Amino acid sequence: MTEHSLWRFSRAFHRAINERQHEDLDALIDEDVQWAMYGPIDMFPFFGARHGKAAVLQVIRQIADNVRVRRFERESIMLGVESAASMLRYSLTMLDANKPISLRLAHFAQFKAGRLIRIRILVDTFDLVEQALGQPIHLPRLAS
Amino acid sequence: MTEHSLWRFSRAFHRAINERQHEDLDALIDEDVQWAMYGPIDMFPFFGARHGKAAVLQVIRQIADNVRVRRFERESIMLGVESAASMLRYSLTMLDANKPISLRLAHFAQFKAGRLIRIRILVDTFDLVEQALGQPIHLPRLAS
Repeated sequence: MTEHSLWRFSRAFHRAINERQHEDLDALIDEDVQWAMYGPIDMFPFFGARHGKAAVLQVIRQIADNVRVRRFERESIMLGVESAASMLRYSLTMLDANKPISLRLAHFAQFKAGRLIRIRILVDTFDLVEQALGQPIHLPRLAS
Repeated sequence: MTEHSLWRFSRAFHRAINERQHEDLDALIDEDVQWAMYGPIDMFPFFGARHGKAAVLQVIRQIADNVRVRRFERESIMLGVESAASMLRYSLTMLDANKPISLRLAHFAQFKAGRLIRIRILVDTFDLVEQALGQPIHLPRLAS
């Protein structure tokens, strides 16, 4: 029984972010990959959609330039034969400001022959923005 | 082959939101349910954690008091025997202001004997807050 593609990808991804070692990832991403990470691109240019392996390796380098993973916890997970979804809680350091950030995200990933072909990543972005700004954004109460 | 619990729950949930018919939902929620929807509770008091069927039915009533679902699209989905995760794109109307809102969310749900026992819901909250405010929040560019 072989290891699920998610574990290989996850290991290579974290190695790319924390050690800037991108070789492992290279073999685990399909040439035609579709990538989307939803969030405010004005603040963090690495949010948004990317298409193709080169663009995805590039955006992962961009993320690695900005954050380091201190630890993460997988709160929920579902594995299919060539698919995986999980909800994760990350403790990150923003490298520029040497500032700790905690972040919750969910991803849905599809693999083909062991390579990532599609991933959609959703982030609790308001929480992220407030932490990155270092102060709360005043919000009116809108709902009853 | 019986229908997956997710479909029954989803139908009853949308009926509760749009028609304020809560009877179907009542039978589909475990007494000991754990519920969490991550987001800014200052703006929307229906965000946050709830424990137990009464509290969850109450928060769903609160959501129904504030939004109507115009349509939704399931962009990604994974089904297990008694679990389900999906990413959805909702078109909502905020009832107070009669304002259209679009919203992306991800949920991870566990069922026990056909009843919801645990759900975690993640929302692209910054996008939601900006739409609810009706204007962009100015953000500095923080990442390279």
